This record gives sequence, C-alpha cells and structure tokens, in this order.
Amino acid sequence: MLRDCEPSGIVFLPRYFDMVHTVIENWLDEALDWPMSQIQGSDGLSVPFVNISADFPAPSRLGDRLTWRLAVREMRRSSMWLELTGTTGAETRVEVTGTLVLSEAVALRTRRWPDAITERVKDYLVAPDGKARKIAE
Amino acid sequence: MLRDCEPSGIVFLPRYFDMVHTVIENWLDEALDWPMSQIQGSDGLSVPFVNISADFPAPSRLGDRLTWRLAVREMRRSSMWLELTGTTGAETRVEVTGTLVLSEAVALRTRRWPDAITERVKDYLVAPDGKARKIAE
Amino acid sequence: MLRDCEPSGIVFLPRYFDMVHTVIENWLDEALDWPMSQIQGSDGLSVPFVNISADFPAPSRLGDRLTWRLAVREMRRSSMWLELTGTTGAETRVEVTGTLVLSEAVALRTRRWPDAITERVKDYLVAPDGKARKIAE
Amino acid sequence: MLRDCEPSGIVFLPRYFDMVHTVIENWLDEALDWPMSQIQGSDGLSVPFVNISADFPAPSRLGDRLTWRLAVREMRRSSMWLELTGTTGAETRVEVTGTLVLSEAVALRTRRWPDAITERVKDYLVAPDGKARKIAE
Repeated sequence: MLRDCEPSGIVFLPRYFDMVHTVIENWLDEALDWPMSQIQGSDGLSVPFVNISADFPAPSRLGDRLTWRLAVREMRRSSMWLELTGTTGAETRVEVTGTLVLSEAVALRTRRWPDAITERVKDYLVAPDGKARKIAE
Repeated sequence: MLRDCEPSGIVFLPRYFDMVHTVIENWLDEALDWPMSQIQGSDGLSVPFVNISADFPAPSRLGDRLTWRLAVREMRRSSMWLELTGTTGAETRVEVTGTLVLSEAVALRTRRWPDAITERVKDYLVAPDGKARKIAE
Repeated sequence: MLRDCEPSGIVFLPRYFDMVHTVIENWLDEALDWPMSQIQGSDGLSVPFVNISADFPAPSRLGDRLTWRLAVREMRRSSMWLELTGTTGAETRVEVTGTLVLSEAVALRTRRWPDAITERVKDYLVAPDGKARKIAE
Repeated sequence: MLRDCEPSGIVFLPRYFDMVHTVIENWLDEALDWPMSQIQGSDGLSVPFVNISADFPAPSRLGDRLTWRLAVREMRRSSMWLELTGTTGAETRVEVTGTLVLSEAVALRTRRWPDAITERVKDYLVAPDGKARKIAE
C-alpha cells in the first residue's frame, strides 16, 4: 500500500509497527474472541507493549505482500512475550519480539489475564517444533 | 497530538517510531546539514534501520510533551548505532536503540559514510560523561 | 482498529482518507488489474487527487466495521470523478467525492487513461439505478 | 518529512489531513488557550469535523516546507466553518474548508461554544481584508 512506503519505495519503518498492531488486534479478536472494542470498552483494560524489538533482514517494497505469523514465547501472570514474523515468499522481512502487558486503562496497573484467555492462548504457545501460526493482517 | 493517541488515551506505539523518524530527519538536516530531500534526491541514497528496539518504562498521555535526546553509540563504516530517549519532565517515557545503515536507494547495497558526515557526527558520539544532545522533534 | 481511533474513541478523520486510499489501490489492482507497484513502477505514472470532499453524517467508533462502495461519477480524458461511501449496517458514516488525475510521476503533467483501463472502468460508471459496487478495504 | 511522502515523492493525501489536525490542535491550545487534553479530558467534549473539503492546486514534495494559515469563515452556536491554507513560498499547495462541531464526547450531542472561546475566536474571524492568520503546524 502507498501509505506504507516512503519516497525511496521501501516500507517506512513505523508502518511495520502499524501492521504488528493490526495483526495483534486481529489475533485477539478472531483467535482469542476478545475484540479491542471489548478490552478497552466494557472491560476497561488496555494491552500496551512495554518493550518491542525488530530486525529487518531485507527491505519490503511497494506491491510486496507480507504474510504474518504469531507465536507466544511465554505467558506470564499479566504479560506475554510475543514473536511475530513477516515474510514475502521464502524471504523474512521483519522479525519482531515484544512484551504485551494487561493493565487497567485508567490506573495502568497490571492485571492477571482472564482464565478464558490464558486457555485460548495455549494454542499459540511455541510448540516443540517451534512453529508459529499464520495470522491475517 | 490526537494523531498520536489511541482510545485508551495513551500514545499509540507506532507513533513513537514516527517521532523517532522525525527526530532523526531533523538531526540529519539541522545538525549534519544533510536533508533527507538531498539524501534520497540528488545523492540517490537511503538510510533505513536494520534493527530497532524500544522500552517504554511509563506511558505517555494526550497533552504530554516529549523531549527527545539523541546520541551515537558507535559509528562504523556504513552504519551507526543510535540511542534516542524521550522524556516528559524528569520521567523517561521511551528509550530506543537502533542501527541506521547508509545504502544506495536502488540496489540497497551499503555505502561508506561521506567524510563530512563522519566529521559532524563526532559531536554526537557518546562522551565520557554519557550525555546525549537534545534534539527538536 | 486502534490505529484508526483517537482518545475520544471515534475514528480520527485522517484515517478515513487512509481507508479511501486503500479502497482505491485495491480497486485499481483487483478490478482494473493495474496495481500501484506497476503504475508508479514500470509505468512511471502517478494518480493523485486534485480535490477531495467528505461528509461525516455519523461518527464511527472502535470495533465498527465499515463497508466501502465505489462508483465513477464521470470519466474524462485524464481524470475521473469518484464517489466512495462507507457504511456500517444501514448507517452511512462517510461520503467522499474526489477527482483522481493520471499524471507522469516526474513532471506531473496529465496523461490520457490507457484504453484498457477506460474499458474496465465502464463497469463502475454510475448506472441508471445509481448503484455503486462494493469494494474491499 | 519521510512520513508525509509516498514512493512517487509527493505528499500522501491523508498526511495533509494529519497536518490540518495538528494546525487546529495548536490553534486551540496556543491561540484559544484550550488544549485538546482539556477538551477531551476534564471538559468531556470532542470537536470532530462533520465535513471537510480540500483542493490541491500543486503537489508538495519531500523537503518542501508548508506554511499554514487559518481563518474562521463563520462562527455558529455549536459549529464553526474553518478555512486553512498551506503554502510553500508564493505557491498555494492545499486549500481546506471544513465544519468543526462541538459535541459531548460520549453522546456526541452538539454543545454551545463556551463564551470565552467565542470571544477569543473573534481575532480569527475573516476580516474585511480577507487575511488569515499564520499558524504553526
């Protein structure tokens, strides 16, 4: 998309983080049945990153389509350590790891994950084969 | 700014990376006298990040003003290791480190930094006192 | 999506124009078989808006899903007058009209639409029933 | 700024509306002493556009600096009709008109402008000479 690219024709770095957020919102909604409108609405919660790190082994250009995969490296009481990978064909374009924290929207104090969510996340915990699930952006 | 915040009222993570890019473009232009319109225009070059990492010790909210500081941790042949910090008052809100690479815009092969740039960057290399320079966003 | 909403919880106006651009890029690619990577790449062309106008009869909130429709009000030598509508259920949230111009990417002089494109656009010209086609964002 | 431009090197249309929002937030804050953090915070209000229209007589490119001017065409009970112009040197790049509405953040019902605001806006009402004030983006 034009909105993702800068004049040199490659994807503008902040756009990767827009995509990461979109992948995570879709995952929360579709895989965990926990849409952001509920998290931030009736639940009064927020799930910000407290850290995030990205490597860009190769640039992406206008017209490339990125396929995203998501895995949960570790699930803790009120945070989870996520890993996301964006590929085009066989080529890895971006590798992201980051820690998502569940917190109260107003006070921003951490909160324990609801049991139902912990249960559903199990499918995304990194398996012995190390494979991550494919997620729609 | 409204554009930086999401419904929970805190800064939306990808916006921090927009700000980082703005700080770096202003630094290249004003401190190094090397505007992006020249880098990507007549020079035919590009300065993408090959990796970037951020910690968010505390959230920023609508109306907070971030002050950014930039330091060069290390300058290499065709890359530099940057450190940026965004603070509000005495509180650190975001700490970013990343590797910027000089490359040809089309082939994306790395290039050696021009001597004039290497010279000007010296003022921003982390000094024995570890202090970073304040940069306008 | 969080990226679309501001602290008051409603869609941030500039995001509507991001969506409009995405709808048009998808239409050019999927309906007219003319992807932006070709337009701006091998073809050396650009399709900027020279004017755009939007009405927002009702606000959109986090979690709402907009369905977009696109129609061509008029096709001229080197421009077309587009109409896009975004709805949620039965409610119209945004109505956009604007003039897209085909121009050379460098000189920005106008260019005549390729015949193949003119032909394919016919399906989207506003019909006597005034109905517009549904387009994926 | 790179974030404003797309691969063809010209400003990406939605970015103009980001700039318009920034100009208006700065105007509300600095000229009307009514920062968005107060409007959407303690005041529980929101000031969305209900319509907006833009003309782009000439494209802007990476490195161009836009100077913005703002005028109030008309002030009504709960809305105002704004006009913004962005120029580079003597050249007009963008002309925007739009209607801003004061509303309650939750119910989105319209509200009368506070008297203090109505008073301060008078300086920006289009004068007989038709001149608009210069505003920082």
